Amino acid sequence: MKEKGLLIVLSGPSGVGKGTVRKAIFSQEETKFEYSISMTTRNPREGEIDGVDYFFKTREEFEELIRQGKLLEYAEFVGNYYGTPVDYVRQTLDNGNDVFLEIEVQGARQVREKFPEALFIFLAPPSLSELQNRLVTRGTEADDIIRGRMETARKEIEMMNLYDYIVENDKIENAVEKINSIVQAEHCRKDRIQQRYINMLEVE
Amino acid sequence: MKEKGLLIVLSGPSGVGKGTVRKAIFSQEETKFEYSISMTTRNPREGEIDGVDYFFKTREEFEELIRQGKLLEYAEFVGNYYGTPVDYVRQTLDNGNDVFLEIEVQGARQVREKFPEALFIFLAPPSLSELQNRLVTRGTEADDIIRGRMETARKEIEMMNLYDYIVENDKIENAVEKINSIVQAEHCRKDRIQQRYINMLEVE
Repeated sequence: MKEKGLLIVLSGPSGVGKGTVRKAIFSQEETKFEYSISMTTRNPREGEIDGVDYFFKTREEFEELIRQGKLLEYAEFVGNYYGTPVDYVRQTLDNGNDVFLEIEVQGARQVREKFPEALFIFLAPPSLSELQNRLVTRGTEADDIIRGRMETARKEIEMMNLYDYIVENDKIENAVEKINSIVQAEHCRKDRIQQRYINMLEVE
Repeated sequence: MKEKGLLIVLSGPSGVGKGTVRKAIFSQEETKFEYSISMTTRNPREGEIDGVDYFFKTREEFEELIRQGKLLEYAEFVGNYYGTPVDYVRQTLDNGNDVFLEIEVQGARQVREKFPEALFIFLAPPSLSELQNRLVTRGTEADDIIRGRMETARKEIEMMNLYDYIVENDKIENAVEKINSIVQAEHCRKDRIQQRYINMLEVE
């Protein structure tokens, strides 16, 4: 039996820099995992290539794929669908390769239901840590600004419940290094490696 | 409330190279964890310094410490005691620093009982993987040699049950890199970081 790849899900609140971190990961030569290209109904922008940046589909095609259960996760933003085709993900994992998804928080929730064993990494905004400094040096900012930030922070902390790991995006290099470590560590998990040795002995 | 350090336990079958890997880890400048010095009743060897290589104790002193519950783990080998003083470990963890133990398998079992939340890393001999090649190229070695190796392999695979992670010691640099990644990943675990943010908000 072939060992399956890991499904790695990077998510986090919008604006946290998920796309930038993902691009930095895939610009490393040593990155061994496969990036799952998203599908969308929005129009291609200047320079975007179908099958490289996105799979571009019509609304009718996309809705047909939803009906057929061909999307691992999807969401609608400002009138356009975005989603992850499930077949590519399953095939790549079955071939023993890791798949990397960079998706929105609501998409991550859908993936958790279908692939509970996937690796969920939450990219946290550095504003969360910065908030502490603001809290202790009160008086420099209006109370309602602070209150608004506290409310956002509470929601973001609540979002983390779904995830296995949290990486603060204080610097892109730090975030990339931590994500690399998390993936490498997951490959060293007892259950995974012990099973590999057991399979090996059964070769006889 | 101060965040506690991680207790990192490196163990594995005797002869696997635990000491060599531990020395390589502590020769890195960036290593931030503290090495817990063992206590022993054996005589110091040429050049060994009390409090650096080991804490050297008499048999009576050691047995008194056992009675007082001052050892996190201990074992007897060829007439000498070896053990880990528990106070140093607790104090270092309470100060928020990680502690690294490199101990025998039976010691690791004792630590698991007292610190179930510690991070257990099993260093696996490359002979386990090499065994597969030997199994598929049968006939070049006597059957009873193969059988003996299979038996050892089964015991080693069984030992892994207690551990969280398994690192094959194929090359020291690889093993060190994996151990570093595992420790870094553990520091990114959701429970740990989410709690940090929650504590932060409670500053107000």
